[in-house]
Amino acid sequence: MVEIVGAVDYLGDERKSAKFDVEAMKILWAGGQHQFEIADRMARLVATDPEFRKDERIHQGRRELIKNTLRKAAHAWKRINELRLTEEEASQLRFFVDEPSFTDLHWGMFVPAIKGQGTDEQQRKWLPLAYRMQIIGCYAQTELGHGSNVQGLETTATFDPETDEFVVHSPTLTSSKWWPGGLGKVSTHAIVYARLIIDGQEHGVHGFIVQLRSLDNHLPLPGITVGDIGMKFGNGAYNSMDNGVLRLDHVRIPRDQMLMRVVQVTREGKVMESGVPRQLIYGTMVFVRQAIVNDASRALSRAVCIATRYSAVRRQFGSNNGLETQVIDYKTQQSRLFPLLASAYAFRVVGEWLKWLYNDVNEKLQAKDFSTLPEVHACTAGLKSLTTSVTADGIEECRKLCGGHGYLVSSGLPELFAVYVPACTYEGDNIVLLLQVARFLMKTVSNLGSSKPPVGTIAYMGRVEHLARSRCTVQKAEDWLNPDVVIEAFEARSLRMSLACAQNLRRFSNQDEGFLELSADLLGAALAHCQLIVVLKFIEKLQQDIPGDGVKEQLQALCSIYALSIVNKHLGDFLATDSITPKQASLAQDLLRSLFSKVRPNAVALVDAFNYTDHFLGSALGRYDGNVYPKLFEEAMKDPMNQTEVLDGYQEYVRPILKLRHRESRL
Amino acid sequence: MVEIVGAVDYLGDERKSAKFDVEAMKILWAGGQHQFEIADRMARLVATDPEFRKDERIHQGRRELIKNTLRKAAHAWKRINELRLTEEEASQLRFFVDEPSFTDLHWGMFVPAIKGQGTDEQQRKWLPLAYRMQIIGCYAQTELGHGSNVQGLETTATFDPETDEFVVHSPTLTSSKWWPGGLGKVSTHAIVYARLIIDGQEHGVHGFIVQLRSLDNHLPLPGITVGDIGMKFGNGAYNSMDNGVLRLDHVRIPRDQMLMRVVQVTREGKVMESGVPRQLIYGTMVFVRQAIVNDASRALSRAVCIATRYSAVRRQFGSNNGLETQVIDYKTQQSRLFPLLASAYAFRVVGEWLKWLYNDVNEKLQAKDFSTLPEVHACTAGLKSLTTSVTADGIEECRKLCGGHGYLVSSGLPELFAVYVPACTYEGDNIVLLLQVARFLMKTVSNLGSSKPPVGTIAYMGRVEHLARSRCTVQKAEDWLNPDVVIEAFEARSLRMSLACAQNLRRFSNQDEGFLELSADLLGAALAHCQLIVVLKFIEKLQQDIPGDGVKEQLQALCSIYALSIVNKHLGDFLATDSITPKQASLAQDLLRSLFSKVRPNAVALVDAFNYTDHFLGSALGRYDGNVYPKLFEEAMKDPMNQTEVLDGYQEYVRPILKLRHRESRL
Repeated sequence: MVEIVGAVDYLGDERKSAKFDVEAMKILWAGGQHQFEIADRMARLVATDPEFRKDERIHQGRRELIKNTLRKAAHAWKRINELRLTEEEASQLRFFVDEPSFTDLHWGMFVPAIKGQGTDEQQRKWLPLAYRMQIIGCYAQTELGHGSNVQGLETTATFDPETDEFVVHSPTLTSSKWWPGGLGKVSTHAIVYARLIIDGQEHGVHGFIVQLRSLDNHLPLPGITVGDIGMKFGNGAYNSMDNGVLRLDHVRIPRDQMLMRVVQVTREGKVMESGVPRQLIYGTMVFVRQAIVNDASRALSRAVCIATRYSAVRRQFGSNNGLETQVIDYKTQQSRLFPLLASAYAFRVVGEWLKWLYNDVNEKLQAKDFSTLPEVHACTAGLKSLTTSVTADGIEECRKLCGGHGYLVSSGLPELFAVYVPACTYEGDNIVLLLQVARFLMKTVSNLGSSKPPVGTIAYMGRVEHLARSRCTVQKAEDWLNPDVVIEAFEARSLRMSLACAQNLRRFSNQDEGFLELSADLLGAALAHCQLIVVLKFIEKLQQDIPGDGVKEQLQALCSIYALSIVNKHLGDFLATDSITPKQASLAQDLLRSLFSKVRPNAVALVDAFNYTDHFLGSALGRYDGNVYPKLFEEAMKDPMNQTEVLDGYQEYVRPILKLRHRESRL
Repeated sequence: MVEIVGAVDYLGDERKSAKFDVEAMKILWAGGQHQFEIADRMARLVATDPEFRKDERIHQGRRELIKNTLRKAAHAWKRINELRLTEEEASQLRFFVDEPSFTDLHWGMFVPAIKGQGTDEQQRKWLPLAYRMQIIGCYAQTELGHGSNVQGLETTATFDPETDEFVVHSPTLTSSKWWPGGLGKVSTHAIVYARLIIDGQEHGVHGFIVQLRSLDNHLPLPGITVGDIGMKFGNGAYNSMDNGVLRLDHVRIPRDQMLMRVVQVTREGKVMESGVPRQLIYGTMVFVRQAIVNDASRALSRAVCIATRYSAVRRQFGSNNGLETQVIDYKTQQSRLFPLLASAYAFRVVGEWLKWLYNDVNEKLQAKDFSTLPEVHACTAGLKSLTTSVTADGIEECRKLCGGHGYLVSSGLPELFAVYVPACTYEGDNIVLLLQVARFLMKTVSNLGSSKPPVGTIAYMGRVEHLARSRCTVQKAEDWLNPDVVIEAFEARSLRMSLACAQNLRRFSNQDEGFLELSADLLGAALAHCQLIVVLKFIEKLQQDIPGDGVKEQLQALCSIYALSIVNKHLGDFLATDSITPKQASLAQDLLRSLFSKVRPNAVALVDAFNYTDHFLGSALGRYDGNVYPKLFEEAMKDPMNQTEVLDGYQEYVRPILKLRHRESRL
């Protein structure tokens, strides 16, 4: 680590106790040697550049915060150009800058939307401008009164055949575009989603490229009212982003600024399919979701890294040669922390698999094979929902695992939580997504026995005969180490929950009503299915060759911890479906405890393998060298409150209280 | 409500659908007519006084924020004196000001510590000064390296017989006092906890009154280094509090500033018991914990109020006469929201019961009857842990239930969460407390069959013979409405989990090691016991007369929802202990759904019964009149970012990007 040259390593003993090749694990975590080198180089580039320091962020007011974000974005762009970085390198550099900004939306939504939904001609026109940042774009879909339900959007784009233009308009207060990142103050352009209206007829929701601000003086163009939607959760966190509000008052744009790759509007106002299959946009969806799952593993691993290191530093109660016991030695701490460590690794493995799935889907789409799309859609929706929910809760759990000090912003955890939680809402609310998974599961169940057997992550449902009757064979704790046993328990639980839902649904004459009424059970079935996918992909990964001494053994322990802590947490499901017995559950608990002991001496090394710099972690508690307390002190002393001994306000408000004559008081 | 005179009530239809007497419920919630009138009057007093406005808080930097907090505290003190408020009224007024400040610690910890631990003489000297705020005090216990383990504190107080003084000293960095509220910048005095040392001998940890700052110029006295520990979670939240760090460099205080109610140090340096029983301090502990439980019900009810009202306003998907469906009509929303609504009421009932328990304990202590103390200690520790954990998680769940807009500070929920979560850590870390409960349960189990039958909340364990064999009799969903059935299922689950732990413990030759090893199971048993207490107290309340049309029916529905959603959430416990069958669990789920439908038309009225003003709620989403969207807009427009069309930083950082020549770029 750049930051610790020459310093004492207070976690040295922890590192010596590790029983695996940490360098090999780093490469596995990064996704390969090439990826490791780029991430490592970009992380150091950011960490050693004083322009990218983050520690002053917590004392900045909103305007100052955003101004600094703009400064960093400009500096990053300068470095990207100076160093002639590749797209992959530039993306990693932006990631390690670790501050939400308008560039996230420009590169992550605006550019991909044009690529995915624009015609070749539109791409030729707009992409070079966007690539060079001669325009800055955002993605304006959600409205003040409308979130997940895209079909409920109120903004209209009405074709005017006389001028060959669309008139884009916000008819109501609730139709104001609300939330888009980068919209409020920075973006010059937006892709605005609106209901297409031609000749009084509605033709669905489409994307339109709308210029918002003058490229000369950055003032909003006529008819455009645009602003920031105000403070969000946390101190710094997402407040470096100008999430915005946009009202459009009959704004006119040329016809060729509707994104027309799939649906086109002719000069005459005729709506035509272009012949490009609609399904192609699913590729983008899979890409976005794999990115979210990979982000989840990074955010969770970051929190786990902080909590693990500080748990090894912090001592409480007990006594060992006069020293209190390291908190990480307590089983209560381990039983909360290690399942999260295991989840971080599990999500990383699933994230890599989703990268493969993205390529696979694209190949199939090119070959016009759309058969696996429903399964891919359900699988990626479910994994987005599962991983982001667990990560959001897991960050908060890590904060609590750091005791009181986790509440200090200098621990890095409050801001990490605040900046992460929107992932549960954006790109599909997690509950809404799980309901989509449930709908797919019900469809799969109702098609069982038909000629088309279920494929991919849902293939196990084809073995309904077997799984509906199978009995878990665990007789002693170690039996739970057998991957086949674990998989079958998860498959049985998931399938049986789906079957029970399907059966209960049949009691309703109106299936939609039944679905709403039973939605809590359906969510449970969907979650069980998603957890199975993660367990399965983790186990599949372990069936491959994995280089590095002891690396596979560690991953095997983490995989078992991941699976068995789910058994433990969702015991009701497993027991109610008779997938395991209470005795088997108790054996799983026993094995879990011994696995915790196995992971314990490797815990610090397992979080070192994430290869996070102290700059990126931004945590006094998670420092690589474990020298926590002087750093906490140092950070505290930076607070503006400590600039004077007697604080501003004492003379006006405190002194008069202390000196008050109290003849009148009844107290 | 003060704020809505003359306005349209967008939730009017919701209020009309209520099937109970809301005014009667308000009085029940407040704890009686007298309490209702005071709370109502104080809430309005604060809400209508512009000095107490809160909406500018989110844009203030730290110094400005604290200065405003001082201003409000001074104004509150002025009003308290002008209006000659009683202590009860003053405390309510401070509560509705709704901003953590040094006065919380002065009144909540400093004064009670002197009352509880000071001799009569010390009380005569210090209490009048404190009551008149001629000194301002705080409570300095925790240290940088030492939280929950009071016996691990490092600060020393060494008796110097020559000068008849104690020398109070921080020997190490980790012994710095760290976290005490009010310590950093405002308090003139602190009760400092330190190891008493006389003649090289240690005599345990005691409290010492130490003056920190000059009463003339507020500068720290010689030997005192004191400051603020920096930013905490959230934007405003607890940052209005000057949580502090204190280092003492051989600070001398007179001998009579050790709090000597129980243990005394004589002029000669002899340590003597005063004869006052140590147990008397338990009274204070019960008082503090009942206050925390009551605070939990208020914080949770506040979040639930916001989420319920906004769920009735917000519409998503579906379609009903062209309007989308109210979000509160979805079972997924109900199954997350209504159990929290029920928990808020449950905790309120338990809080009232704890007030009774406090009086009961005090009477027993006065009569030197200490027999129930272990049970009272375990019960209050467990309820503190349970209610604060559920509340912290529940606030975040309410935020998620508001969709994306819950992430805006103007929703009120992010700050409520950030300001609330410390309750899980202070006054006993929630996990540490649950382990204390578990230890008590194990002791109770091992004493079963002895001559002393268990009493109070643990009495059910005396029926071990019956409960170890009993079978739940539920055969149809409505059977779950029978309180005896519910109680027995909870008792069986709790007792059997404790028995299983006790049995597993016997496998260990070293009981302390066994306790550590099995701590995850023990936490489960402790939680089950605490949940039983809440269910039991709620059911006992319902056996009393409850005035008001339909009030009891609503509470009965909420009580069932509370109990059955626990059955649902902790199904694994109930099934693994064979306390209920999977079929009975499924019937509980069925009943739960029908109870949700029963509560649905009453939901808005049930949160109206909390009688919170719009000022107190501080939420655009939770407004009484439901006119949410214009308010969100209005709040957004207050952001300093919206003061200019072109933001600060555009010229320096954005314009150069847009105008850059790109001959060198590879992108």
